[in-house]
Parts: sequence; C-alpha cells; structure tokens
Amino acid sequence: MSRHRISEDREKQSVEISDEDNDGSLPQSYVVMRFDKNIPDATLEWIVDKIHTLRTNGGGELLVLKQPYKESEGVVLHISASTIKFLEAAEEMEIMKCDKNGVRREFTVSSLEDFLPDGMHVDDFLTTAEKQKIIKHELENIRALPVEGCIPGYPQYTLYEGQSILHVCLVEHLIKAIYPLHDVESLKKLGKRWYATLFDPQPLEEIRLYFGEAIALYFAFLGFYTAALVFPTFLGFLQLFVSHETVPFFCVFNVVWVTVLLELWRRRSNELAFQWGTIGMTSLDEPRGNFHGRMGKDAVTGRIQPQYPRWKTTAKLYFVSIPIVIACMLFASVFMLALFWVEDYMKDLGTPLAEQLMNLPSIIYSILVFIINVKYKTLATYLTNWENHRTASQFDRHRVIKLIMFEFVNTFMSLFYIAFVKQDLEILKTQLATMLIVQQAINNIQEVLIPLFIKKYTQRTQQNISVSKEVEDKCENINSREILKHIPEIRSDDTRIAEAEKEDLMDVYEETYDDYLEMYIQFGYVVLFSSVYPLAAFWAVVNNFVEIRSDAFKLCKFNRRPFSKKVKDIGAWQKAFEVVGGLSILTNCGLMFISFHQRKDAYFFDQLQWLVMFVALEHCLLGIRYLLHIAIQDKPEWVRVALAKKYHASKQALKNEQLLKNRGILARKFKTVSSRPFKS
Amino acid sequence: MSRHRISEDREKQSVEISDEDNDGSLPQSYVVMRFDKNIPDATLEWIVDKIHTLRTNGGGELLVLKQPYKESEGVVLHISASTIKFLEAAEEMEIMKCDKNGVRREFTVSSLEDFLPDGMHVDDFLTTAEKQKIIKHELENIRALPVEGCIPGYPQYTLYEGQSILHVCLVEHLIKAIYPLHDVESLKKLGKRWYATLFDPQPLEEIRLYFGEAIALYFAFLGFYTAALVFPTFLGFLQLFVSHETVPFFCVFNVVWVTVLLELWRRRSNELAFQWGTIGMTSLDEPRGNFHGRMGKDAVTGRIQPQYPRWKTTAKLYFVSIPIVIACMLFASVFMLALFWVEDYMKDLGTPLAEQLMNLPSIIYSILVFIINVKYKTLATYLTNWENHRTASQFDRHRVIKLIMFEFVNTFMSLFYIAFVKQDLEILKTQLATMLIVQQAINNIQEVLIPLFIKKYTQRTQQNISVSKEVEDKCENINSREILKHIPEIRSDDTRIAEAEKEDLMDVYEETYDDYLEMYIQFGYVVLFSSVYPLAAFWAVVNNFVEIRSDAFKLCKFNRRPFSKKVKDIGAWQKAFEVVGGLSILTNCGLMFISFHQRKDAYFFDQLQWLVMFVALEHCLLGIRYLLHIAIQDKPEWVRVALAKKYHASKQALKNEQLLKNRGILARKFKTVSSRPFKS
Repeated sequence: MSRHRISEDREKQSVEISDEDNDGSLPQSYVVMRFDKNIPDATLEWIVDKIHTLRTNGGGELLVLKQPYKESEGVVLHISASTIKFLEAAEEMEIMKCDKNGVRREFTVSSLEDFLPDGMHVDDFLTTAEKQKIIKHELENIRALPVEGCIPGYPQYTLYEGQSILHVCLVEHLIKAIYPLHDVESLKKLGKRWYATLFDPQPLEEIRLYFGEAIALYFAFLGFYTAALVFPTFLGFLQLFVSHETVPFFCVFNVVWVTVLLELWRRRSNELAFQWGTIGMTSLDEPRGNFHGRMGKDAVTGRIQPQYPRWKTTAKLYFVSIPIVIACMLFASVFMLALFWVEDYMKDLGTPLAEQLMNLPSIIYSILVFIINVKYKTLATYLTNWENHRTASQFDRHRVIKLIMFEFVNTFMSLFYIAFVKQDLEILKTQLATMLIVQQAINNIQEVLIPLFIKKYTQRTQQNISVSKEVEDKCENINSREILKHIPEIRSDDTRIAEAEKEDLMDVYEETYDDYLEMYIQFGYVVLFSSVYPLAAFWAVVNNFVEIRSDAFKLCKFNRRPFSKKVKDIGAWQKAFEVVGGLSILTNCGLMFISFHQRKDAYFFDQLQWLVMFVALEHCLLGIRYLLHIAIQDKPEWVRVALAKKYHASKQALKNEQLLKNRGILARKFKTVSSRPFKS
Repeated sequence: MSRHRISEDREKQSVEISDEDNDGSLPQSYVVMRFDKNIPDATLEWIVDKIHTLRTNGGGELLVLKQPYKESEGVVLHISASTIKFLEAAEEMEIMKCDKNGVRREFTVSSLEDFLPDGMHVDDFLTTAEKQKIIKHELENIRALPVEGCIPGYPQYTLYEGQSILHVCLVEHLIKAIYPLHDVESLKKLGKRWYATLFDPQPLEEIRLYFGEAIALYFAFLGFYTAALVFPTFLGFLQLFVSHETVPFFCVFNVVWVTVLLELWRRRSNELAFQWGTIGMTSLDEPRGNFHGRMGKDAVTGRIQPQYPRWKTTAKLYFVSIPIVIACMLFASVFMLALFWVEDYMKDLGTPLAEQLMNLPSIIYSILVFIINVKYKTLATYLTNWENHRTASQFDRHRVIKLIMFEFVNTFMSLFYIAFVKQDLEILKTQLATMLIVQQAINNIQEVLIPLFIKKYTQRTQQNISVSKEVEDKCENINSREILKHIPEIRSDDTRIAEAEKEDLMDVYEETYDDYLEMYIQFGYVVLFSSVYPLAAFWAVVNNFVEIRSDAFKLCKFNRRPFSKKVKDIGAWQKAFEVVGGLSILTNCGLMFISFHQRKDAYFFDQLQWLVMFVALEHCLLGIRYLLHIAIQDKPEWVRVALAKKYHASKQALKNEQLLKNRGILARKFKTVSSRPFKS
C-alpha cells in the first residue's frame, strides 16, 4: 500500500526534476554518498526512495543526483535539498543566525525577512557547513516504518520500527562512504588567515562556520591553553637563575595556575557557547542518529522520536561498562608492573645476554600497548553504543571518559611508578624531556610531513590512473547499470565529479579525540611533574605553536571535510583536565617531599615531621583550589544577564500565549473595595 | 505638583472607601503596623499617603484601616489590599498555583478562570500567607520619588530616589513593628498534624502554605537528616558489641554516608523547589527591599528598578568584608589558644589558689564569646547590607557564610585543639557526650519550657493590665489624636484588635539561622568526631525527634507569624554542610591515626609507614567522595524532564510570538526544485 504511494510520489518528482534539468540548473551537491559496488538494484532503489520520500513515510525529503556510473567506483550519489527544505530543517534544528540587528537568535522560517541581509539571495543564507549538517541530520533521521521488516535484498539485516536506516547501511557496509564536499574558495580564504599567519589570533568564527562548533572549540582551547602556558614558561626560565629553594613556590604556583586556567576556560567556553547558541543544549535535545528505541511521543517536545528508558542506559553503564573498564585498567597496570619487574630482573641478572636483551621488554611492551589500545578503542565504542545514549554529546562524553581512563593508566602510570615507587627523579626528568621534545616532534612530523609526502606520491600515481580511467570510462558508459533512471545525472564534465573523486581518497577526520588526547598528555606532563623539570612549559609552548598550525593545515589539506558538529563545551575533557589539575597537588607535594627527603642536608626535622608538613601543605592547596572554584563564576556577567533576559522573554511569551481573556472581564466580575482607576 | 495630585487621589479614595464602610464590610486585615508614639502627624500622613497612592507615584496601592487610637500603643494600622491588587501582585511576583488540571504553574490574572476551583470565592484563592507576602512586597517597594529629599518632619533622614521608605522607617524606628496576623483556625489544624503527632511525616505542604518556603525547607531538611541518622545510629549500637578493629570501617562508612546524604538532599531539595515553583530563582530576580541604587531600566525584565553595579558589590566583598571576617576568625582562634595556655599554666602552677580559680578562664571565655558573638552578628549583618546584594537569597547567603565561618571557629576549634594538638581522645569523648546530651537538652528546655513559663506568667499579669487598660481606653477615646480622619476605623469591639495586641507581645521569629546553626553544630559533632564516640548519632536522633516538635510548637505558639519567604534551596548551608562533610575525611583519618599511634601494640609498621597509609586512605576517600558527587545527579529525572518541557514550551511560545508571516508567502516567493506538496 504505502510502497505504492511512495513510487507515485517519486515518479511525480522525477518528472518535474527533469523539467528543471532541461534548464541546465541542477541543484548544487553538498554531500556525496558512495555505495557498495555489489549492492542489488532493489536495495539501491529502496534507499534512494527513502531519501526522496516524505518524512511522514520515514523519508528524508532530499534531492538526489547521480554521477555517471563507473564500474570502478560503484554508484555515487550527490545529495542536496530544496531551498525550502533547508530553511525548514534549519528551524527544526534550531540553528542560530544573526538577524539584521546583529542579534543572534534561533532562525525561524516565518521571520526569514528579519534574518536575510539586503541583497543576499536566499540560497546563500545558510553556509555550506550548515547545509551539509542539515542533510546529514535528515539522512540520519530516515527511519524504518513498522511494515519494513528488513532491508530489501538483504533479508538477514532486520529492521525495527524507528531504526535509523543510514546507520544500518553504514554498519553493514552497503554505503561505503558519505562525506560533505569541500568549498575550495572558502577553504583557501580560511587557510590564509589561519595556518599561514604567525602571530594573528585564530579566526575562530570562520573556523566554526566552516568546520562546526566542535572543531572550533578544540582550536579555541588549544589557543587558550597555549597562551596561559606563557606564565609557567617565564617562571621556568627564571628558575634556572635562582637557587633550589623555589620548589615550594613553584608547587603553589602550579596549583593556582592550573585551577585558574581551567576555571577561566570554563567561562570562556560558556561565552563561546552562548555566542554560538549551543549553551542551552541538554540531554533531552534531538536524539543522535544511532539512538534506538520504540518510536513514541517525546515527553518534552511532543515530537515522535525513538524512546529508550534512561534507567536502562544507567544500569548498563554501572553494571557492565564500568566494571569492564576498571578490569581493563587493572590489567594494563599489572601488565606495566610486570614489565618493570622483568626489566629489574634482567638488570639484576647481569649476564651479557640479558644486557643485550635489555630493551626487548620495553619494545614488546610498546607494541602490545599499541595493539591493546586499538582493541580497547573498539571495545569502548561498542560499549558506549550499546549503552544507547540519547544525544551525540552524551555518547561522546561517555566514550571519551572510557578512553581517557585507560589512556591515563597507559601514559602516566609508568611515570608515577618511577617517581613514587622507584623514587628516581633523574630518570623521571629524562623521561619528561624525551616525551616533551622528541615525542612531540615526531608526532608533528607524522601528522603533517608524512601525509604531505604521501600526497605528493599518490598524486603522481593518480595521474597514471586517471589516464587509464578515461579509457575505462568509455567502456563503462556503455555497460552502465540501468538503474535509477528517474534520478537526474550530473554531466561527466562537471567539476564536482573530479572534486568528489579527489576527496574520496582523502583521510577521514574522525573526531577531535586524538587531538585532545595529545594535548591532554602534554598537559599531564607539564602539570603533574613540572616541578622536577621546570622547562616543560617552554617545550609545550613550542610544540603547541607548531601544533595549531599543523593541525589546521592537516584539516584543510589532507582530510575529507568533516560534518559540522554542535557542542556546548569540551565535554568530558573539562573534567579530565580538572582531575589532572587536582592530582597535580598530590604529585607536586609528593615530589617535593621526595626531593627534600633525598637531600640529606635538609634534615631540620625528622621524616615524620616533614611528611606532616607536606600533608598540611597539600590540604591547604586543596582548600585554595576549592575556594578558587567557588570564587570564579562559571559564566561572565554579560552572558548571565543575556541568558536571564532570554529566559524572561520566553516566560513572558508563554504567559501571553495563555492570555485569552482580558483584564476588563475581571474588573467587571469582581467588585473591589478600592476605587483606584484601572490601568488597562 | 505631584503632592497635590496625590492628595486628590486620596480624597477620592477615602470618599469611596467610606461608602463601602457604610455597608459594614471593612476589608480583612493581613498585616499590622505599629508606629512610634511620638511620630509627627505630618510624617504619619505622608507614610499613609504613600501606602495608599498609585505605584507610578512611588506608592503601594494598598488599603489601610486604623485601630481606635490608644495613647499606650501609638498609632496602629491594619493593612489590606483589594482583590484585584492581590491578583495583580500575585502575577507580578510569579506566585505558583495549581490550576484545575492539577498542574502547578505561574498564576496570571487573565487565566484566573483556569486556576479558580469551582465554587471557590475569588477572595479565598490566595492563602493568607500569600496575601501577607504580597502586602509586604508592596510595602517594601514603596520608594522615594526624586522630589522627596527627606522624610517629612525629619529633615535629618534624607532620602534618595528609589530608596525603600519602609526600610528607612524601620531602621529609624518610626515604625516600631510590622507583622502579619496569625490565622488561628488554620494554625490549630496545622499543629494537630505537626507537633501533636508522634510518627507521622511532617505536613510539609501545609507548613509551606502557612509559614512559607524557607521555614518549610528547614523542617524538610531536619526531617531528612534525622531519618538518615538512623543508619549511623544502628551501626553505633552494633559497634558496642564488636571489637575495636571496626574503626577503619566506620571511618569509610561515615564519609560515604555524609556524601550520599548531602547529594540526596540536594536532589530532594530540587524536587521540593520544583514543586514549590522556586527552582528558577536567580540573582537577577526581583530586588529585595533594602537593595539600593539608582532607579533604572532592568537589563532583564525592562522594569524600572534600582540598579547597582555588581562589580561594586564584589569589590566590597573581596577587599573589605572578607579581610574583616578573616581577621575576626584569627582573633577568635588566638583568643581560644590563649585560654588553653592560661589553663595549662594554672595547672602547672599547682598552687591551691590556682586550683580554685581553675574554671575561671573557661567561664570568662564563655561570657566573652557570648558577647563577641552578638557583636559579630551585628557586624556581619551590617557588612552584608553594605555590600548591597540584589536579592534576598544572595543577602542571606552572604550573611550566613560570614556567620558560619566565625561560628565554626568558636565551636569546633577547641575540639580540633583537643583532638590534634593535645591528642587527648578521652577528653574529646567527654566533651562530645556533654555537648550532645546535656547541651542539647538545655537548648530544648530553653526554647520551649521557658517561653511556656513566661507565657503563663505574662498572661496573668496581662489580665491585670487589660483591666486597667479598659479604664484607660475610656479616657483615651476622648483625647484621640485628630489625624488620619479619612482612614476607616475598626470598631473597638472587633476581635482583630485583641488579636493584634496579643501578637504584638509575642517573640519575633527572625529567621531560620539559629535553627540551622543548632543543627549544623550537631552535624559537626556527629560527622567530624563520631569515630571516637559512636553513640553520637543516637543522641542526635533523640534530640532531633524532640527538636522538630519543639521548634514547631514554638513557631505556632510563641512567635509572631513570620512573613513567608521564598527560597530555592537551603542556601549557604548546603555548602557549609558539604565542607564539614569534606573535613570529616580529614578528622576521621586523623583520629584513626592518633588512636593507632597511642596503642603501642599496633606497631606492625613504623610511624612513617602508618602515616603514609592513612594519607593514602584519606586520598582514596576524597576520590570516592568526588565520584559519588559526579554519579548522583542533582535533580531527579522527572524534574529534569518537567523543566526541559517548560523551557521548550516557553521557547516555542517565543518563536510563535515572532511569527508574523506565514509559510505560504515563502512558498510563493522562492521557487524550488522540489515539487513536494507543502504541508501547511
């Protein structure tokens, strides 16, 4: 029944679309979708149908173009949408735009006039990033109807009502790739103002517009943190010229600096989130694509959306995920301790063979850690997905927490062992210097130079391929698959085909996780152990200065354009940085104690008294941290006022909406002892 | 000019009011205001005029009745308001009411029909507590006009534009007393369900309706805390039958219990705040009466209100108040140490004279502490007032923080000294037992039995007075002051005159501060030192069981009715209790260390190792506390959903308000490549 109606719709659409095709004005393509080469025609037809059809039938209401079919690539579709669809979806997704008065507020279709600058065409109103995000959102919200029990052509891939079809197709590799196209012009402009400058501040607003909030916030944080590092760098140099008695001062400074840095960042982050309109995001917002559950009426918005009881997620988290994560962490710790034990054992052995094999455990360990890390990442993603969090930010947060906890053990446990069990501060210092200078330099080279090299190399081979391709193409155009006839085809000389092919070969920029992790580990080195190696901050500044530019370069040049992603803060990272900040009190006091302990000349007191003193100092620092946390407000005053104003305005609007009767009725109804004339 | 117009208004009002007076239906009186006996007529006329007149002229728009004049009492006015005024103000103050569907939402005049239950008269719609709160709010918001440079008759009391006149009159004692009248019927009903029962839960909703949110929340917290005390009480008894090795267990339990208790209370408190509609209160709400500043347009609501730059408040707080408070705390600590030193010195002296005077320092100390406490309270109130916080809750919070900090030093410092400097756990135990058993019993007796006795006594003497008064009255009615002729007079046989006279003699219930403080000190004893004296919890339960009933009895029987006060949480107390919870980790671990230290048989390790172990345990507990804090959510799920729903609804309403053009216009305006039919 409903399938029949859908086909009708489709036919009608295709007819009119080809009408427009005659004018030569095919819609711009925003997102490219490449299918598995062996996908059955029926499946393909069904998916395209779904993308096309009305939302009430579980469809995406989007426009589809096809590239000329090539055997080597499979079916490649370009997705777009009508102007009205874009505007409608922009309203639904609560996209913030500046209106003519310069006030940033949620866009509504009905007030388009207030938003659209004079002389701007309505098609240019939304940025390409916004349009791509909208298309992705719509694609993700293509959901299975109750009658659709499985994917046509694949009876083994069962569907349940409300499941996101795109997600299934991606997981089952029916769709091989889906990515938004770069906007070459804007990208060039952006690059010039970003990685090509030396000391200019980063163009955050442009980054946000092009890459979305998540990436812009990462760069904002990186910049903020690097600027803050200037203080400890300065002190680190100063300390070179001063006697050793500055250690306690450095320890206190470190703690205050970390706390103030993180509190101020929270303020800054809230400010940005307010400007970007993401500050009000909650766990009750739009569900993410992979969120599954029975379709039902949402308790908050009343929309029909998948519903999944929250207690189930919580139960899964507490009774399965957390125990597994803790077990993994314990395993990693034991593993590391075993390594140290083997190393010590071999050192004690002292035979020539043992000395030659001295580095073998470390090497084996490094390789194993690498493998375990990859496996663990898969496990963490699987678990978090299985917990079924409602929003993308919740999902990210829980996944990142799992990853950080494990990564923390892997990275810092050995340093803790060296510092507090072996108590060998010289080795610790060497380790820190190695990590901060050599490791970071290698990382930067890996990230930029190697891809640059690969790119150069592949371009040359690609030219060869493209020559052979042309030959192929001619043959292929003949035995082109006779499907999707109703979909308008892009001419084979259209530039966007070349563009899509080029970007298809690029690396995928998965997420900001790896970039944050790099920064996090560096932050840990600087903050946890810098009282031993005061130049740590300097090397961190040097690295970050390069890092900002190399990350930016990498993003603009080597990666497929990522879909823009909304975030209101740096998520789990804020807490993770704060925990390291808290731990820094312990480690700094501990290192101080050990260094005093080792200097025999410092024995004014006995050991017990020293320890009591350090514990007392530590508690004072914890207290100071708490006070700073209370004293520095989360949001700048102007943001608080602006939020309160908005809140007040909407409350007022709600009241007005309820206003059905006017005051006059009241006045007539109830006599009063006062004769005061009414103000109406 | 404007004075002229006001007099006109007044005359008109008085004429019509006397019209109604002819029907014998004077409005009910809600709030009583007693003036200084020597107040000049002009001042009195001016104040009454202000209470009467329109808000645009800085008035209160309230109704005023006068009691027959008595020389002994001075002028006594009864304040009321018209039905419409009450309803209007209820909307302005955003009072929450249940509508007919049982949904609690902000009342609006226009939707009165939706709120008013069938058959209820509109005059009964608001509770007396609400009406009294409204009158107080309106009285406090009577503000000086620019032309009014001083209080008429008192050229020395200058006014500036926007100053709260009621506040000045109270501070300068022109108004001697202002209090709402009790509602004898409701009070009886409430008492029966409250202090007269043994095991029934407290009737929180009724308490809130009668006494307001602040007092209801105090009793809610007291009940919650007492119920939670059952666990440590049980364990305390259990410990009596078990060997000493349970101390570490008890220490861990204590920390977890405190943390969970406070986190769960925060949830419960948010739940109540949501039900009572106070959860959305912010520092940008209605300013409190004493808040002064230039009149200006409010940045949030756009209403004309006093404006005072926030940075000035912050600067005053950080650069004046906090240093003063810290100085006071240091002074108190030094003072206490001096006492201990003198005591020790006298003990060492060992002469008979010294032994006889042994208790003298303690007695002198107690007296001095009492005096200093009173002085400090005045100082703290003065400073907080001078800081000029905008809302009543901010003012309370900052005042309470100042008081708690000082009180903490006074109460617990000596115990810390005994525990950690003297390390005399026996004396500590005795002290705790004394405080928890004797001190609390004395407190309860003071609070209830003494007032009961006084009441009995005064009632007898009052009868004598009233006889002599009747004689007086006859004389007085003749030489009654010839003022306020236009104000309707209550007949001298009206019961409310007797009621007002009775309540005028009652104690004033100033605020919840003293009650919270009592609970806080008890909480400190139980949580900080209970590992030494495990029965502490039991005595706390016994005391609180009596305390709930005695506090309730006191409130209902001996005190003037307090004005109802809105709060969204227990304010500074939450943080104060949390800080004690955090400190409890330190003290419990410290006590454990000392007790192990003193038992010579427990030396498996050397002292240093023991200390390291205890520090490690302490850090683990701090970690557990942090995790519990993160794991337990601030608000129950249903409150989160309900808030999100409300937020969404008001956002939607704001959008709809902006809806001026409809979608059809758009569709005609912009051509589209899609032929999808519009859903309108």
